[in-house]
Amino acid sequence: MSAAPLKIGLLGLGTVGQGVIRVLQRNADEITRRVGRPVVVTHASARDTSKAREVSLDGITIVADPMQIAAGADVDVVVELIGGTTTARDLVLAAIARGKPVVTANKALLALKGNDVFGAAREQGVMVGFEASVAGGIPVIKAIREGLAGNRIEALAGIINGTCNYILTQMTEKGQAFADALADAQRLGYAEADPTFDVEGVDAAHKLTILASIAFGMPLNFDAVAVEGITRVTPQDIKIAQALGYRIKHLGIAKRTPDGVELRVHATLIPEDKLIAKVDGVLNTVLLQGDAVGQMGLYGRGAGGDATASAVVADIVDVARSLGSEARHHVPALAFQPDAVVELPILPLEQVSSAHYLRLNVADQAGVLKAVTGILAEFDISIEAILQKEPRGGDDATVAVITSVVTEARFVDAVSRLLALPFVREDISRFRVEHF
Amino acid sequence: MSAAPLKIGLLGLGTVGQGVIRVLQRNADEITRRVGRPVVVTHASARDTSKAREVSLDGITIVADPMQIAAGADVDVVVELIGGTTTARDLVLAAIARGKPVVTANKALLALKGNDVFGAAREQGVMVGFEASVAGGIPVIKAIREGLAGNRIEALAGIINGTCNYILTQMTEKGQAFADALADAQRLGYAEADPTFDVEGVDAAHKLTILASIAFGMPLNFDAVAVEGITRVTPQDIKIAQALGYRIKHLGIAKRTPDGVELRVHATLIPEDKLIAKVDGVLNTVLLQGDAVGQMGLYGRGAGGDATASAVVADIVDVARSLGSEARHHVPALAFQPDAVVELPILPLEQVSSAHYLRLNVADQAGVLKAVTGILAEFDISIEAILQKEPRGGDDATVAVITSVVTEARFVDAVSRLLALPFVREDISRFRVEHF
Repeated sequence: MSAAPLKIGLLGLGTVGQGVIRVLQRNADEITRRVGRPVVVTHASARDTSKAREVSLDGITIVADPMQIAAGADVDVVVELIGGTTTARDLVLAAIARGKPVVTANKALLALKGNDVFGAAREQGVMVGFEASVAGGIPVIKAIREGLAGNRIEALAGIINGTCNYILTQMTEKGQAFADALADAQRLGYAEADPTFDVEGVDAAHKLTILASIAFGMPLNFDAVAVEGITRVTPQDIKIAQALGYRIKHLGIAKRTPDGVELRVHATLIPEDKLIAKVDGVLNTVLLQGDAVGQMGLYGRGAGGDATASAVVADIVDVARSLGSEARHHVPALAFQPDAVVELPILPLEQVSSAHYLRLNVADQAGVLKAVTGILAEFDISIEAILQKEPRGGDDATVAVITSVVTEARFVDAVSRLLALPFVREDISRFRVEHF
Repeated sequence: MSAAPLKIGLLGLGTVGQGVIRVLQRNADEITRRVGRPVVVTHASARDTSKAREVSLDGITIVADPMQIAAGADVDVVVELIGGTTTARDLVLAAIARGKPVVTANKALLALKGNDVFGAAREQGVMVGFEASVAGGIPVIKAIREGLAGNRIEALAGIINGTCNYILTQMTEKGQAFADALADAQRLGYAEADPTFDVEGVDAAHKLTILASIAFGMPLNFDAVAVEGITRVTPQDIKIAQALGYRIKHLGIAKRTPDGVELRVHATLIPEDKLIAKVDGVLNTVLLQGDAVGQMGLYGRGAGGDATASAVVADIVDVARSLGSEARHHVPALAFQPDAVVELPILPLEQVSSAHYLRLNVADQAGVLKAVTGILAEFDISIEAILQKEPRGGDDATVAVITSVVTEARFVDAVSRLLALPFVREDISRFRVEHF
């Protein structure tokens, strides 16, 4: 226990950065007992170096320029918590270039430039830890990359954006409209002032990119992800889904098929009795399907200073252990040996097969249901469930169906035909359905 | 990829042993891509070497005496799947003695003799992997030992015996009596012919011993676990619990308190809206409470050849990576550095505090409720929920209460006083309640 402390250089002193300092300080004894040496933040960078923080910065050299730490400071590990993909990339590459292992929570950086980052790390033989980049404190990267190493992973699906999950949960429990639930989320700090990245699905797509890569052994390919958010979800759809036995969740889904890998992020109907449908509020969850393990899942806090710090510190501990050992003894960054990470064909969305939820508003007249079901039958689409609501006081009637599994292209064609019917209003709603 | 294969010596060719061979064969390409070299079973032992198996044994040297492999065969890793605590111990220690890393699924061995096993492994500087010993394919050991390494783990609770969970689920869903649900479980292969170890809680206690040790950094201490099974659970209690908003699950619970560590295994009422209450059938789940991560959980298949093989192979992959590196680069067996694993005081069950469910059958006469509530009040026990059922056709009335949190000793005293009341029948039922 008398070994020299492991020196951490922290880039960024925001919520997560302060969380890392707080956790390392509070659990110093516990962590020393695990690692065999103390782990201490010796350097940190902050845009405003004089700002008061909630944690003690005693003994930490604070600098304004993170590059001073990444490229120069006497540290053993560089922890990047600045975010973004430009400065952060330069910092991470600078640290790697001088042989320093890096721990980062930056999903955007990895999803967009991870192949470069991991390539550089490989050349230098240093580790890059990124458990904190997906699902906060939940060790899902470790579960996939190490815990399920014996499996051929067939599919994964996750609630990996807490903002979306909070908004959808509020809409479900309180019947709120999207805009109202979003406003509440912003007031509570669960959504950013500009919530676009979260509610449009971009953040979830970053995370899905990372999960798919380590699950299937393919390079990071953010551009291949089909991305939809939750802005089109209405309280009406949520209620109809409930009546049919489903919950609406925003999921990231990666699936192997004989024709290619599906990579998609969208609001999804899930049977209400599945555990994944019951993970509410800001919680995250990831469901994994392996050929040996079957279905297994993890759930927990996907965000927050302490929860994200939990993952950052776990990575620091892993890195601490690896220091001084050869790269062949390390867990490969993308789960597979670098020369075994291979491009896999990505299935275009039009070719993706899934069940669908379709809600139509229709004029209240005879023969509507017959016409709708007739067109679906023409496209060889079966109806697994149907709900028709009587119009109230001159309103349109509502018809909602859950279809059989059908390709996106065929379903889109069928919807076009339905929209051409004179009594079908333009205001339709459709979401994919996953039964797991 | 042209590196020499990793040679596995498999002790035991039962369900899990065959699962390991099947998974290694089926996923040979995937595993080679992860490890950087093929992983091949070269030797296996079986009591009956001539028996036909469901997997191909081509290229595997089959012997009757496992010690031939443990102590002599040219293998890189010894995988112990024989079970029991005598022969298995000798085999594991023999393998360790000649510097071979060991992977085992044997919870009884580790719970009872793990301190010896890990001590020997430490001396030789070899790894002992035991992910498969708890919760089958769910990587819960890895989650605690590595994924939550930054946390002070405060508590854990798990459904870690699939037989118990299957029986309780059947009793809940079908209203079956314990004996009938057990008979069904036996018919389906979810319970052994002699189910004692499972239904009396011993198997769960073995697993809890292991989880508590790696969560809190203390030696394995099976004898300190307070063990109860599920044989006292009745359909009546399950129904009353449901009416009060609870499910009855068999849990292993380990908790830090200021006065010592709680280690207990028993049937437990859990609020029905908690995720852990919704993990049904043969599934396992473990809920972890860390100071940084908050609450997080894992769930999945806790048994079965392929699911358990998933964990065994994951350990093999970890061991494969570590071969040739110094012990200081390995994850310590019990999560903490060996010299930092310290005895912690164990709280005697009498001092454990929890809420309680108490069901009394009482003669149908005036003043009963007043007397019962009066005695509980005397012991300073509040009633959080109460349900009184009218007698039907001359039967006794039923009174069930959920109490406030109270020490076991005080609750037992109160129950004695209640039993002394002339109108209270001997047939009472009581279970602890956890609200998480």
